[in-house]
Amino acid sequence: MKTKKVAVIGASGYSGEELVRLLLNHPQVELVAVTSRQNAGQTLAHVFPKFASHPKSKTLRFSEPKADLLAKQADVVFLALPHGVAAEYAVPLLEAGCEVIDLSADFRLKSAEIYQDFYGHDHPAPDLLKKAVYGLPEIYREQIKKASLVASPGCYPTSILLPLIPLLRAGLVKPTGIIADSLSGVSGAGRKAEVDYLFCECNESVRAYSVPRHRHLSEIEEQLSLAAGAKVILQFTPHLIPVNRGILTTLYLAPETHFSTAAEMNALNEKVSACYARAYGNEPFVRLLEGKALPDTKNVAGTNVIEIAWRLDPRTGRLVVLSAEDNLVKGASGQAVQSLNLLCGWPETAGLA
Amino acid sequence: MKTKKVAVIGASGYSGEELVRLLLNHPQVELVAVTSRQNAGQTLAHVFPKFASHPKSKTLRFSEPKADLLAKQADVVFLALPHGVAAEYAVPLLEAGCEVIDLSADFRLKSAEIYQDFYGHDHPAPDLLKKAVYGLPEIYREQIKKASLVASPGCYPTSILLPLIPLLRAGLVKPTGIIADSLSGVSGAGRKAEVDYLFCECNESVRAYSVPRHRHLSEIEEQLSLAAGAKVILQFTPHLIPVNRGILTTLYLAPETHFSTAAEMNALNEKVSACYARAYGNEPFVRLLEGKALPDTKNVAGTNVIEIAWRLDPRTGRLVVLSAEDNLVKGASGQAVQSLNLLCGWPETAGLA
Amino acid sequence: MKTKKVAVIGASGYSGEELVRLLLNHPQVELVAVTSRQNAGQTLAHVFPKFASHPKSKTLRFSEPKADLLAKQADVVFLALPHGVAAEYAVPLLEAGCEVIDLSADFRLKSAEIYQDFYGHDHPAPDLLKKAVYGLPEIYREQIKKASLVASPGCYPTSILLPLIPLLRAGLVKPTGIIADSLSGVSGAGRKAEVDYLFCECNESVRAYSVPRHRHLSEIEEQLSLAAGAKVILQFTPHLIPVNRGILTTLYLAPETHFSTAAEMNALNEKVSACYARAYGNEPFVRLLEGKALPDTKNVAGTNVIEIAWRLDPRTGRLVVLSAEDNLVKGASGQAVQSLNLLCGWPETAGLA
Amino acid sequence: MKTKKVAVIGASGYSGEELVRLLLNHPQVELVAVTSRQNAGQTLAHVFPKFASHPKSKTLRFSEPKADLLAKQADVVFLALPHGVAAEYAVPLLEAGCEVIDLSADFRLKSAEIYQDFYGHDHPAPDLLKKAVYGLPEIYREQIKKASLVASPGCYPTSILLPLIPLLRAGLVKPTGIIADSLSGVSGAGRKAEVDYLFCECNESVRAYSVPRHRHLSEIEEQLSLAAGAKVILQFTPHLIPVNRGILTTLYLAPETHFSTAAEMNALNEKVSACYARAYGNEPFVRLLEGKALPDTKNVAGTNVIEIAWRLDPRTGRLVVLSAEDNLVKGASGQAVQSLNLLCGWPETAGLA
Repeated sequence: MKTKKVAVIGASGYSGEELVRLLLNHPQVELVAVTSRQNAGQTLAHVFPKFASHPKSKTLRFSEPKADLLAKQADVVFLALPHGVAAEYAVPLLEAGCEVIDLSADFRLKSAEIYQDFYGHDHPAPDLLKKAVYGLPEIYREQIKKASLVASPGCYPTSILLPLIPLLRAGLVKPTGIIADSLSGVSGAGRKAEVDYLFCECNESVRAYSVPRHRHLSEIEEQLSLAAGAKVILQFTPHLIPVNRGILTTLYLAPETHFSTAAEMNALNEKVSACYARAYGNEPFVRLLEGKALPDTKNVAGTNVIEIAWRLDPRTGRLVVLSAEDNLVKGASGQAVQSLNLLCGWPETAGLA
Repeated sequence: MKTKKVAVIGASGYSGEELVRLLLNHPQVELVAVTSRQNAGQTLAHVFPKFASHPKSKTLRFSEPKADLLAKQADVVFLALPHGVAAEYAVPLLEAGCEVIDLSADFRLKSAEIYQDFYGHDHPAPDLLKKAVYGLPEIYREQIKKASLVASPGCYPTSILLPLIPLLRAGLVKPTGIIADSLSGVSGAGRKAEVDYLFCECNESVRAYSVPRHRHLSEIEEQLSLAAGAKVILQFTPHLIPVNRGILTTLYLAPETHFSTAAEMNALNEKVSACYARAYGNEPFVRLLEGKALPDTKNVAGTNVIEIAWRLDPRTGRLVVLSAEDNLVKGASGQAVQSLNLLCGWPETAGLA
Repeated sequence: MKTKKVAVIGASGYSGEELVRLLLNHPQVELVAVTSRQNAGQTLAHVFPKFASHPKSKTLRFSEPKADLLAKQADVVFLALPHGVAAEYAVPLLEAGCEVIDLSADFRLKSAEIYQDFYGHDHPAPDLLKKAVYGLPEIYREQIKKASLVASPGCYPTSILLPLIPLLRAGLVKPTGIIADSLSGVSGAGRKAEVDYLFCECNESVRAYSVPRHRHLSEIEEQLSLAAGAKVILQFTPHLIPVNRGILTTLYLAPETHFSTAAEMNALNEKVSACYARAYGNEPFVRLLEGKALPDTKNVAGTNVIEIAWRLDPRTGRLVVLSAEDNLVKGASGQAVQSLNLLCGWPETAGLA
Repeated sequence: MKTKKVAVIGASGYSGEELVRLLLNHPQVELVAVTSRQNAGQTLAHVFPKFASHPKSKTLRFSEPKADLLAKQADVVFLALPHGVAAEYAVPLLEAGCEVIDLSADFRLKSAEIYQDFYGHDHPAPDLLKKAVYGLPEIYREQIKKASLVASPGCYPTSILLPLIPLLRAGLVKPTGIIADSLSGVSGAGRKAEVDYLFCECNESVRAYSVPRHRHLSEIEEQLSLAAGAKVILQFTPHLIPVNRGILTTLYLAPETHFSTAAEMNALNEKVSACYARAYGNEPFVRLLEGKALPDTKNVAGTNVIEIAWRLDPRTGRLVVLSAEDNLVKGASGQAVQSLNLLCGWPETAGLA
């Protein structure tokens, strides 16, 4: 297989660092550039001692993020930038013929209006919204293969969409009244020097935030609506939990079928099981839990795997679905590399196993 | 004010230890006995070095838990024992004229059938169920004052009942479809030598458990049903979070009143606010958060306070209520001391401020 | 007993917050002012929700730190400010007749030259160095009672000086070759918005820093030299550990007496034991551990206690001494309140038990 | 390259689990058996959900640890068993022609007397002590290649020996008066159901233990003495720190050369630098830190790398050396796999990069 030259713009945040980790060890990738304004001129080994054992870390230096230069160096460019900023780089890079995988929220929506509503300013490049493919490989695999601009999903959206979309597509649960209660590790807040994310502010603390209207709602609802064929409005509560990595999401769903007897419950359970097996039975990065097991973030930390389990509750008539992922891997950089693999025609698990 | 002689049976677990901490510093209490089979004969200072600065810690020794002896020593006895075991002590102690405050689940239910259903064995002393008062002071203050047997509520129940009961009593939310999503620190599992609760199994881990049928559902639903005047079935998902102390609960509720305009939302918000102010405006241990603040377990750790905040969501039509408490204090031992204060006619905040 | 009016300048950092906690609950103190540039105008309850249950928290508002105004309001002023800044306030406050307890490093040294050497700039008020009393109550109790300017010791110095001074004064250990290896919780770094102290940078991380020349060496060595009657040069290695609070220090010492037989070892052990009993047997905040117990930061967290234990090692001939304290209490704000109590003629444990 | 059939006896502890993780992904290894009394009959996927994405995890089942059966299945057998028990398996496996890599302490010492002294019972197979090679590849590479019984070093010993041996061999530091102060994550205590290692007992706690005589001293001193050509007695203080993985060791050393001027210090620094470069400049798993960097456990977690840095202290005349490793990888299972690679003639980094 041929290798590709790859660059990462914004490589000093947590997602960027994780991308670098994955790309350094990817058999088909030649990492040709990493950018960071604050670290420009320094080697990878200097900024991230943990990469210092990799031969490339002593020679590869952070550079200033200049789209025109990067376009000459790289075939594929990852953008690990704040929303709003990513679009500024995507436009010239795409024009120069690069393929772009964007980890920000800039191209995840189809609608510039919803973007404006949730992000508070006009979309910087609305024409690209149609071009962009939502980078959830289990759902949009064929589209990603042909994409030149991949909008890699957010961490919360991934943890909610993967367990929900098959159920909505199959009509097994109602598209109304859905609740997603999510718990996220602190790396989700990014490597930002803010008091709220200091060790002593997060350790021995559990708290919700952005209640009831978190920005990620926009992309989650757009994708759920597509899956359901109807407008979905979601109740979503994110919480900050003192772990470095990991998102655990608990979904509260109303099955379309009523169940009251044991037989009805078993029948519905079979349907849910079959639905997930059909959707994900052969997916390398979706782990459907069996028996008594429930998702645990420690079982997916550092991997591109999402764990999914479910329980029917005969007392309430609800279906409770739980998922666990590493917010920096399946929720960000690992999933972006999965899209890279698809885009380049490589095995989907390359560099991720 | 007169002092009382107080004993703690089962003083080596986390709740027992916290009780000892509170009682050692209580101005009206003379702590006359602490029991623990495994530590019998050892001083408080030896078993819990952190109490070693208290003068009593060098002389007070753990004893074997013998009801007849304790009945002669103490006016009031706390039971910090596993469920099923507590009842064995409560019967002789009450017969001997002691007042009993039980932190186990043994006397929290009115119905012996529901106990059997959730705990898997016959209730050991069904006659006492009628006699016992549910020890939630903000709800049952007058009854606790006259009680001889107080069944102190569980940690999850406290975090769910206090925010919910006023809304149900006022008819502001529907008694159907209620969801409680709770996050608990590891001390909730007790000081048990089990692999599941080892540091490395809990640190960097987030997981749900007992889905969908946790034992605490029995007492929560019984109390909610009383408040609503109708049978309440609850969806409840507990999660284990890597903090020592604290429970954060997120409640998803359907208001009885529909709101779609800003005016309707403001009106409903006023009603909720007034309802909470009426219920808890003068309560020393309930903190109603204002403005943008949301509950955070680090703000209540080590105290007997429960924080409550709420948000109306105009997109979903729901009311989201959040609470935070220290599971070992307001969720267990602090609340039990609050009941002690009521029982003895002392200021309700004695030893708890 | 009469009450005093007390102000805290710099009340929004970790030490300042802890001071406020202690002073709010101090029976003799009327907290009349708390200052913070960034929070000026806001109530205590708003900035620190955890204080919101205290009646004063709704009315006491942060003000701008203005020495002349504060001098009119308060009898005693605590300075919880960065070094260099504290001196700017101390001078006018002392001139206006206030008593000042400074938690910064500004007045801890007797020598302006050593200050310049370790802090990199001239001392801002060298005349006050003679006036200031080093606020280690167990060592300088009588001087603190008469002081108008107390220089409250640093967190590392307290954890090293209290176990070492009695041994040096008694001539039991050599003043040469001393090593102090210290482990500190992250609150020691202050509430500063710096990437190094973000949750994800500290959690699951253990690291040394400022090797081999930490600024606190200056005050530690000055105090050790006074105790030994000879110049002491210390090897000191601080480490950052993922806990909120606590310092554990391990001291490696050479006894003046050689011991090789069991009898010699027992004799020396008796001498060390007697030395500590003489120095600290009646101290309310020093806990000498007996038997097999070793210091543990969780046993002192939130308290003004320092735990001390020691072991003679017959294999190496050394004396190993260990101490544990809460860096924010005995290592900062609690100790400062202990000095306040001495200064005001109140019981030394007032507000600290 | 040919593959080898490999078994792990005692695969349910932390070291065993980590071995399984590494061996599942090792390109030359066929993992044929994993044993565990308590999990016998269950699949890898069931016991360790995090391995469930590996195809082998659904078919490989834990078996009872029977030496005779395992000897027929495997070419190489890892023993991840408690000390004392490992020897019982090593004898028959070696007799049956297997190669054995033992992670316990059973074969690390040359002297059965010292074993008896530190472990409190006679050595179970003293004849094998001569046969065993101490599995520190950077020091005993050639011997390991020819060994049939490798005694893989302990976690603390690795963190102390690798930084110290080159300095002692080169005569740069004195073999007397050495102090090692070590901080270990909780996984070092093993997956044992003991109250001391519960989450709430370790979280927010820092404490020393086994002061002053930890069992690992025996192997550390034996190896240091060999390197120094003189009997070395070590002062060693292990501490328990609330992280899952990682050991940070601080070594206090006396250089043979006195340095007082800047020129002398630079000259000595060059010598130390050259010594380490010679010893480890080409080692794939030793990272010598440059500039201002100091070892940090988070930079080595999950990897087989040990970080080393040093500082000369002109004030005390000492050399302070610091190291960081993952106690489960370079301190246990990774190092054991490194020995496997040597033993089998594979690239030393196979399965470890």
